[in-house]
Amino acid sequence: MASKKEVATAKITILPEKKEVLLPVGENLLRALHEKGFDIPSPCNGAGTCGQCRVRFEQGAPPPTDGERRLLNSQEIEDGWRLSCLHKVEGAAAIYPTVQTGELDTKAQVDSFLEVEDVDPGVSAHFLELSPPGRNDQRADLLRVQEGLGQELVAPLPILKKLPSILRGSGFSLTVVKDNDTILDIVPNDHSHAVYGVAIDIGTTTLACYLFDLVSGRQLAVAAGSNPQKTFGADVISRIGHVRKQKKGLEELQRLVVNALNELIARMARKVKIATSSIYKVTVVGNPTMLHLFLGLDPSGIDHSPYVPVIQDGLTTRAEEVGMAIAPFAKVEVLPGVSAYVGADIVAGMLYANLGMTDEVVLFLDVGTNGEIALAVGNEIFTCSAAAGPAFEGASISQGMSALDGAIYRVTLDGDELSCAVVGEKEARGICGSGLLDAVAVLRKIGLIDKTGRLRKTEHPLSSRIEGEGTRARFLLADGVYLTQKDIREFQLAKGAIRAGIDVLLEHAAVNFDDIDRVLVGGAFGSSLFPLSLLRTGLLPPISVEKIHFLGNSAGQGAKLVLLNRKNEEKLQQLNKRINYIELSFIKDFSQRFVSCMQFPTDEQLLTLQQRNEREG
Amino acid sequence: MASKKEVATAKITILPEKKEVLLPVGENLLRALHEKGFDIPSPCNGAGTCGQCRVRFEQGAPPPTDGERRLLNSQEIEDGWRLSCLHKVEGAAAIYPTVQTGELDTKAQVDSFLEVEDVDPGVSAHFLELSPPGRNDQRADLLRVQEGLGQELVAPLPILKKLPSILRGSGFSLTVVKDNDTILDIVPNDHSHAVYGVAIDIGTTTLACYLFDLVSGRQLAVAAGSNPQKTFGADVISRIGHVRKQKKGLEELQRLVVNALNELIARMARKVKIATSSIYKVTVVGNPTMLHLFLGLDPSGIDHSPYVPVIQDGLTTRAEEVGMAIAPFAKVEVLPGVSAYVGADIVAGMLYANLGMTDEVVLFLDVGTNGEIALAVGNEIFTCSAAAGPAFEGASISQGMSALDGAIYRVTLDGDELSCAVVGEKEARGICGSGLLDAVAVLRKIGLIDKTGRLRKTEHPLSSRIEGEGTRARFLLADGVYLTQKDIREFQLAKGAIRAGIDVLLEHAAVNFDDIDRVLVGGAFGSSLFPLSLLRTGLLPPISVEKIHFLGNSAGQGAKLVLLNRKNEEKLQQLNKRINYIELSFIKDFSQRFVSCMQFPTDEQLLTLQQRNEREG
Ligand code: FES
Ligand code: FES
Repeated sequence: MASKKEVATAKITILPEKKEVLLPVGENLLRALHEKGFDIPSPCNGAGTCGQCRVRFEQGAPPPTDGERRLLNSQEIEDGWRLSCLHKVEGAAAIYPTVQTGELDTKAQVDSFLEVEDVDPGVSAHFLELSPPGRNDQRADLLRVQEGLGQELVAPLPILKKLPSILRGSGFSLTVVKDNDTILDIVPNDHSHAVYGVAIDIGTTTLACYLFDLVSGRQLAVAAGSNPQKTFGADVISRIGHVRKQKKGLEELQRLVVNALNELIARMARKVKIATSSIYKVTVVGNPTMLHLFLGLDPSGIDHSPYVPVIQDGLTTRAEEVGMAIAPFAKVEVLPGVSAYVGADIVAGMLYANLGMTDEVVLFLDVGTNGEIALAVGNEIFTCSAAAGPAFEGASISQGMSALDGAIYRVTLDGDELSCAVVGEKEARGICGSGLLDAVAVLRKIGLIDKTGRLRKTEHPLSSRIEGEGTRARFLLADGVYLTQKDIREFQLAKGAIRAGIDVLLEHAAVNFDDIDRVLVGGAFGSSLFPLSLLRTGLLPPISVEKIHFLGNSAGQGAKLVLLNRKNEEKLQQLNKRINYIELSFIKDFSQRFVSCMQFPTDEQLLTLQQRNEREG
Repeated sequence: MASKKEVATAKITILPEKKEVLLPVGENLLRALHEKGFDIPSPCNGAGTCGQCRVRFEQGAPPPTDGERRLLNSQEIEDGWRLSCLHKVEGAAAIYPTVQTGELDTKAQVDSFLEVEDVDPGVSAHFLELSPPGRNDQRADLLRVQEGLGQELVAPLPILKKLPSILRGSGFSLTVVKDNDTILDIVPNDHSHAVYGVAIDIGTTTLACYLFDLVSGRQLAVAAGSNPQKTFGADVISRIGHVRKQKKGLEELQRLVVNALNELIARMARKVKIATSSIYKVTVVGNPTMLHLFLGLDPSGIDHSPYVPVIQDGLTTRAEEVGMAIAPFAKVEVLPGVSAYVGADIVAGMLYANLGMTDEVVLFLDVGTNGEIALAVGNEIFTCSAAAGPAFEGASISQGMSALDGAIYRVTLDGDELSCAVVGEKEARGICGSGLLDAVAVLRKIGLIDKTGRLRKTEHPLSSRIEGEGTRARFLLADGVYLTQKDIREFQLAKGAIRAGIDVLLEHAAVNFDDIDRVLVGGAFGSSLFPLSLLRTGLLPPISVEKIHFLGNSAGQGAKLVLLNRKNEEKLQQLNKRINYIELSFIKDFSQRFVSCMQFPTDEQLLTLQQRNEREG
């Protein structure tokens, strides 16, 4: 027999469900968590090089190691993210273990935690031990269940079909899953703990799914993947074009996105070992075109004036109606939007951002293929959608790419030297949205881009990196990666559209940019943008950099809020009613405004900005 | 040019919709109605021999002709039924034109009219002429429809899928069919007049369907047919046995009945030239087994103690869920029952009979394979189901048959001579339920059956018609048609069960048979029973014959009431709550009671009955 050693243990609180585990002090944290059954990915097997074994310390974070400074950015480190393989169990701590899958999942993971005070998803499971029928109790099966639950219930026929055999096979013990008075499922014996839900954000480019335990409210897993519809075009206009041109185009696009979501959900379920048939609630956000395609509704009214969708107020249906491979009667809630271009993603983001709930003047921005913008002035909300084009998603940029390994995501100046941060610390092979923003901002700041957007050589030593001339000019960012004159034009189109939209909203609300109390930037890659770059490029009006805050994937977070608490559904509907939509394309002089907003700030404006932020920072 | 003649016209009011038509006086009534578009069947082409061109005069009935005395029974003639081909247009009259199809339809037709004061089926159609979208009106398609109707609506996905093309194909004019806040259908242009409904009575033996215009409340057509499930047994027990034994038995029985109903409905729709896709509401009654099979629910709990169905409170579903070939989202309401053996047919019949709505003591009887019995004492209702067996439906009788051509349906004494009335005035080839009752009653009255049920020869001249002895004895009713000793035993089993049930209910309610104010006899062939025979056989306790009333197909009538007015649905639920169900098989001495009730009234009792009814009549 092995001798027993006295081992000191530390109490680790696992969030968000506040479960306490005792881990042996001195043991490697990753290994200790694995031993307790936490399925934390560790492809490099604890070598500290893959960066995937992230946990977030809410409390008791150890000082970061050098390895972490390489693999995590400073914001993440400040937020408490650590690589569990690089630390030992020391003392009491409270941590969020992450469960990650796939390349894109890591990105989605950053936004994956959310605490709600009150878990009340509406969908609930009830374990019933019923008395069997007898001479003095001839109640019908359904009546027996209803009286066991103490309420009248609506039962779908397919569920009634299996009721008698479930009752008799389990000695009249069963779990009823219901949504208000509607039965969603019945299963033999006690499965009242097994009620799961998924929040889904259908992006034009990326799909993100978040799996939750609807009893505890705990997030169990995240999965993200590409939207496979993108083989039919990068933007909503080309997707709608496909529907219009191909007879079965609509069905095809629906099948593609639903199948991809089914795969992501199955992946999460496998990972945490739950049955997809125990998923009973789904909330879905996305732009209106994505939601129309998910539901199989014709989006043809969306791509031309007067831009009319089939639905805008959301829709509740059941999983089998859209082909989702979860419990067939699971409640699928497609959340409400405002117009053909301001969709549930934005409204859910507003919910998450608490927009319109304070006295402040708040500008809310979601930067993607469309720049959706909202301005809350106290209770009133103005919103519009600016056709930003796909520059921020890398699609129209010569070496543009998503924020995957090898993408330049941050460009900074170190004295006169340029420094590029690359995703995965790999060799640079392209540039993603945040890198594009930074590159343009830096080059404008040092004058290698003039206020009209033209690349030009100056006295600055980095001028030597400019090759070619005129429309063929390009700037060497890193070995083999260039920012071209055409890329800068594409960027100007995008930021010009967004800035013009912001100006129109300010005008409509009759407030000045100085009145803005906060700027909230949401959207899947919002949090990777560098605030000063937003000001230096003039994408935002010249405000204090301090006022800019990043929300992460606000759309996904909003979807989670509604998933976990039905009161948020009501809040969303209320919010929706307070939104005034402004159709930019109907504004008379919008083209002129747009063109003038493509200009960059002048040297004087840049100087003022610099001084102001130096003074304040 | 033909010269114009002055023709006198008579104003004929067409019931129940009170439409007035002017018909030329002196013209053949059938031909005049045909000319006004009434599709009245006339297979003999007006020769007065087919008996199918029936109309019922509510007012202004002409004296009956000899032909009518042959083809209609005296009750029908008294009720105002006439054959339209045998009469001329005379003066003002109010008539119900019938629309009949098929052999069984004629039977169903007798009960086919029903007037409701207030047509309010819940399902309604609304014609909307919407303004098309424009720069100042970017509302989504569904929102546009909702605001056009002035209410929020729940729209099934398949309907939303066709919404944009319907709107744009019809210049934004459409008809919305809805049930409360749920859209059942949308169709281009104005179809607000085309909303139809069907009341269905699923009998173990016979299916009856009644097609209604839900705008006017007018009955348009009737169709009846055999229940094709009967190849798997005449009674519910053998149908359940089939479900139990065959893996796909349940699906097979469901398919059979749904297909048969679809055929009947299609037949009616063709007849009156409406689209089955315009049928938006269906109410269904039947015994619990029939309703379980219709819904595809397992009836296995019904055939053994403690007799537990899957549902007893009815169910609302949509047509596509059960495979009905009408509007896919049509509301299909299976009406509520009380227990495994007292079903929606009985409860709907109680609704039609207004049971429990007065201070009276009312006995309600539905005689079929099961004798369902209800006793209302003021507000309180007691009910039970007596296993009567299939004698009344002819199934266990040696020459038993349905009330089709050739069936003896009435047996009377004319002095010492026996007289048999045969359906269709054809040669007798068998005996139906009412004929059986009469035959036994007559033979008991003249003593050829003793009080124990034994056939015996007496002084009576009809003794000569008895052939054979003991269990092989039989009585010659008509050429080639015999009533056997075994038939009499079968009859005794049926009437014994029913009478024992009646006695149990009286005892439970603590009332005496003398306290009964009225006996209401419902059921598909209830109205063909001869009241005195019910007393002479002892099926009913010895009350005054005056108290016995026939309701016709009370189940079907109840289904129609709910079809035409949703308030009746509520009434039905209220009624249902007041019903106390008594399971006869759980009553201790029920077998003894049953055996003693198989006895016929004694000679003295028959004499008293005779005197009483002679005195009163
Ligand atoms: S396991 Fe690879 S960095 Fe921790
Ligand atoms: S048409 Fe045949 S009886 Fe009138």
